[in-house]
Amino acid sequence: MKKSSEEFSMKEAILYSHKMAQLSKALWKAIEKDWQNWIKPFDLNINEHSILWIAYHLKGSSISEISKFGMMHVSTAFNFSKKLEERGLLTFSKKETDKRNTYVELTESGKELLLETMKSFNLDNNRIVNGSIPLLNLYGKFPEFLDLRAVVREIYGDEYMEIFHRSIEGIEQAYED
Amino acid sequence: MKKSSEEFSMKEAILYSHKMAQLSKALWKAIEKDWQNWIKPFDLNINEHSILWIAYHLKGSSISEISKFGMMHVSTAFNFSKKLEERGLLTFSKKETDKRNTYVELTESGKELLLETMKSFNLDNNRIVNGSIPLLNLYGKFPEFLDLRAVVREIYGDEYMEIFHRSIEGIEQAYED
Repeated sequence: MKKSSEEFSMKEAILYSHKMAQLSKALWKAIEKDWQNWIKPFDLNINEHSILWIAYHLKGSSISEISKFGMMHVSTAFNFSKKLEERGLLTFSKKETDKRNTYVELTESGKELLLETMKSFNLDNNRIVNGSIPLLNLYGKFPEFLDLRAVVREIYGDEYMEIFHRSIEGIEQAYED
Repeated sequence: MKKSSEEFSMKEAILYSHKMAQLSKALWKAIEKDWQNWIKPFDLNINEHSILWIAYHLKGSSISEISKFGMMHVSTAFNFSKKLEERGLLTFSKKETDKRNTYVELTESGKELLLETMKSFNLDNNRIVNGSIPLLNLYGKFPEFLDLRAVVREIYGDEYMEIFHRSIEGIEQAYED
């Protein structure tokens, strides 16, 4: 099924790789900056906020799931989880059925803090949402970027996408409750 | 023209923002890692490689253009340019017509080093290119992600896109020469 590398030119591949590097860096840098500004008042960094977020939406999560989905090294996931534990925002545990992995679960105050950050989410300061409004007007909804998702799925595999969808369902459910 | 924030729900906006954060972080982290591995043998980091790349394709570039297009702070752009100057890879200059801005121009050995990195570009280690092959097979060419470009254009403006296009033309021309 895969096309062999002979079937497209090196020039095409370099051009494509260059375009994607520029676009994805530009996109991520805007998101990163806005995200940092959003959670700064709560004395959280992006890794810590991601851990709270993942543990909340997955209803408890292993360090290795946090590492995979939060795109951080296992040791980074563990160290920041430890810091959140020291602040009383989460607890560590082992599962009876799975003694090898360490699980984290949010405490009540961890959940409260996460929900507070969600409530303080301000559209005016979110460049991705605002930058997508012309497409929203065009399509009648926010763009899906299905082709981009296809590339991410190819790179990271089904497991990553499964966690991705579970986190989305988690947010939807949080709004229903 | 802009839709008011009342016309879509906060839930939609948070979901969209979350999806984009995950997708663009996943994409950028894969690109960043592959890029680092690609240029490590040349004793360059991504910022330094970006400076060489921008100065080459723009046929000389101001520090402020490097900062904008390379997504780095002006002082970062200047400091890494200084390091490249110390290695004899570029020179600083002022333009007769524009005394305020500092321009950098690649030396012969700067151009040689950049072209060497290009020659060592290895498709096998490029996850973005490989992850896009199913779309290439589907479309008959690499995807354009025009909707993604539209978002980046909204956020960064026409000037950023203009440099983006000049850098692409620069690569195309390098292949023709």
